[in-house]
Amino acid sequence: MSKDSLTRRRFLQSTGAAAIWLPTTVKGYTANEMHALYADGTMQEDVSKWELDTPSLCVDLDALESNIAKMQSTTSQNGIASRPHAKTHKCPTIAHMQLDSGSVGICTAKISEAEAMYQHGINEILMTTTNVTTTKIRRAMTLRQSCQEFIQATDSPSNARLLSEAAQAMGIVADVVVDVDPGGHRTGITAGTPALELAQLIDQLPGLRLRGLLCYDGGSQHVKGFEKRKNQTLERLVAATNTHEQFQASGLTTEVFSGGGTGTYNIDHQTRGLTDIQVGSYVFMDAQYLGIGGEDNIEHFTDFEPALTILTTVLNDQYAGRCTTDAGAKACTINRPWAIIKGESGISYSSGSDEFGTVRYEENASRTYKVAEKIELIVSHCDPVVNLYDHMYAIRNNQVEAIWPIAARGMSA
Amino acid sequence: MSKDSLTRRRFLQSTGAAAIWLPTTVKGYTANEMHALYADGTMQEDVSKWELDTPSLCVDLDALESNIAKMQSTTSQNGIASRPHAKTHKCPTIAHMQLDSGSVGICTAKISEAEAMYQHGINEILMTTTNVTTTKIRRAMTLRQSCQEFIQATDSPSNARLLSEAAQAMGIVADVVVDVDPGGHRTGITAGTPALELAQLIDQLPGLRLRGLLCYDGGSQHVKGFEKRKNQTLERLVAATNTHEQFQASGLTTEVFSGGGTGTYNIDHQTRGLTDIQVGSYVFMDAQYLGIGGEDNIEHFTDFEPALTILTTVLNDQYAGRCTTDAGAKACTINRPWAIIKGESGISYSSGSDEFGTVRYEENASRTYKVAEKIELIVSHCDPVVNLYDHMYAIRNNQVEAIWPIAARGMSA
Repeated sequence: MSKDSLTRRRFLQSTGAAAIWLPTTVKGYTANEMHALYADGTMQEDVSKWELDTPSLCVDLDALESNIAKMQSTTSQNGIASRPHAKTHKCPTIAHMQLDSGSVGICTAKISEAEAMYQHGINEILMTTTNVTTTKIRRAMTLRQSCQEFIQATDSPSNARLLSEAAQAMGIVADVVVDVDPGGHRTGITAGTPALELAQLIDQLPGLRLRGLLCYDGGSQHVKGFEKRKNQTLERLVAATNTHEQFQASGLTTEVFSGGGTGTYNIDHQTRGLTDIQVGSYVFMDAQYLGIGGEDNIEHFTDFEPALTILTTVLNDQYAGRCTTDAGAKACTINRPWAIIKGESGISYSSGSDEFGTVRYEENASRTYKVAEKIELIVSHCDPVVNLYDHMYAIRNNQVEAIWPIAARGMSA
Repeated sequence: MSKDSLTRRRFLQSTGAAAIWLPTTVKGYTANEMHALYADGTMQEDVSKWELDTPSLCVDLDALESNIAKMQSTTSQNGIASRPHAKTHKCPTIAHMQLDSGSVGICTAKISEAEAMYQHGINEILMTTTNVTTTKIRRAMTLRQSCQEFIQATDSPSNARLLSEAAQAMGIVADVVVDVDPGGHRTGITAGTPALELAQLIDQLPGLRLRGLLCYDGGSQHVKGFEKRKNQTLERLVAATNTHEQFQASGLTTEVFSGGGTGTYNIDHQTRGLTDIQVGSYVFMDAQYLGIGGEDNIEHFTDFEPALTILTTVLNDQYAGRCTTDAGAKACTINRPWAIIKGESGISYSSGSDEFGTVRYEENASRTYKVAEKIELIVSHCDPVVNLYDHMYAIRNNQVEAIWPIAARGMSA
């Protein structure tokens, strides 16, 4: 807010008793005001993103669309499909864009996310986590009753039997894939004979229909250096590939063989039989993925454009070498590397404090900031950042074009 | 879920076409079902916390009430008051409990939190952050128009002038306190002459009413070791104390001299003139505060009881030395130290993965877990954990007594 604008302030009377105070050149819109301007689904006024109240989550539409198109063209060229993970964006609008571009479905990590996506018109849903409690199995089978394209993961014979009983009791045959452990021992059944025997059991159970297998190697996605990442991921997918072939040799359904992610999106197709990749972060990109290096750029992974940013405001500029902003851990998370100030250099950002961000200037800082100025941050790690916000502003050429609900925000159950 | 319970499963028909499947001994309630059971404000069924769908956030009422009573008795004995920070709980129900116990008001970090608290019947609100943009100042003055007891912080002459102009334009006199920097250079004006001159300016401005000063020394709250923490905090409050006395000597209002927090709650009263402490985490406690050590216990800070827990479910128990749960970073944050498994020893928990928690057994582990069993976690750092949930279950003797909305969840703007 410049001093000029303040000397030219104007006073507007509201319809009620309360007076409204506004400097002329700076309007500024609260989230409630933005929702009112967008109540019928089109923006009723031109609003620059710089006029948004902060912290605000923004997605640049040109970058987002470019990322979705790039993924689609790459997977098509490589003879596989994408099945993007909605845990990243939790946003039905983006899920629909991905499906419209040619993705064969979306993934969810939680049953609540799957329910939210289905409620927003999405049918092709693969839940990559096994439902183990009565409550969760009941929710999954209830969803499957109405959502014909819902597939869920299972990773043990006892769980498969439970799922089959529940499906039978609810009058359906539920679609399942076997979750195969890539070696991290986090989820999934051991590749080879245990996985094969589970698949054979599923094939016999009256309440289940086997659709194939998945093997998500999360541990390989952020390996720094393309060659190292390639070698690790292809090596760790060998056991799943062999398992897939054991399924085939046994006459089992192998329609789905899903794995991989953003970090290995141009590597996974070299795995024999792989049908689709569960890419998530490519839609947004973030500081974590920027640092892993790409095939053509050893230092930076530039295959996709940073699309997701946080707008923050400088609250205090009184002390040398630094300023304080309004976006701390509750707006940015404390993931590392920290968020990156877009378009500037020699300036670091950290959000270790719950409520405040800290900007520090290095000797070669490209600029400094004054109180009330706004800063745009490339997010550190997109998934948990999205989970902090109820909506994101869809931006094109710095103007707000839409407000997208993050319908599955907070849906960790 | 034990195998016994499954062999005794029963099948219930729902009113519609869809059948409902339930094992007899395990019911389980989704969040939606819990809200239906609590629709009129009293629980319509006895529900054990162990039947809640997970991840779920729980607050133990006996521990919470004990913590609030302990804080009130301590501050009373020490001749000061508490002004608890609502950024910790974001929950109007708890704010009302604090005020009912004798707190002189609550604090908020954000204007959106202040609005939410006011909408839920709370009037005595001190916003500890300075509002610097047109949008935020407008929101603050709009709140002040209806909320007579709303006080806001300011930390620069230019901001004070802006606030005064806005207040005048909106036909009010706004209450402010001077935010004094304790030395961390994060927010606030420099103690001594700069703070005094700002107070004198406020005293002259037609739209503002000076109420005093605040000085929150966040950097001292988690210093490990009582003596070290005491020495640091009292030393860092000297400049603010001198400033407070300069205010008095100049005939300025010094009705409010607010500072301190949970880590220094039994230290801050030794600061001359301090009126109240902005304690937050004491209501819940967390793993971070447990580690700072207390006056009577060098290792553990046991002055308050851990009241806030997360319930999580084991998803996979197939691999040696570990199991995987459904509460990862999106349910627990990645703050350190990690969450602590309540009532067990020799078992560590980590939530570095977005969707999954990892349990690891040490040689002396007090037990192991099987798939579908539930685990109760003492949260790592209460403030950002609360910010991930829409409601918390209020628990007494392991039964759900109420569901409390976290009305200011996600309110970072």
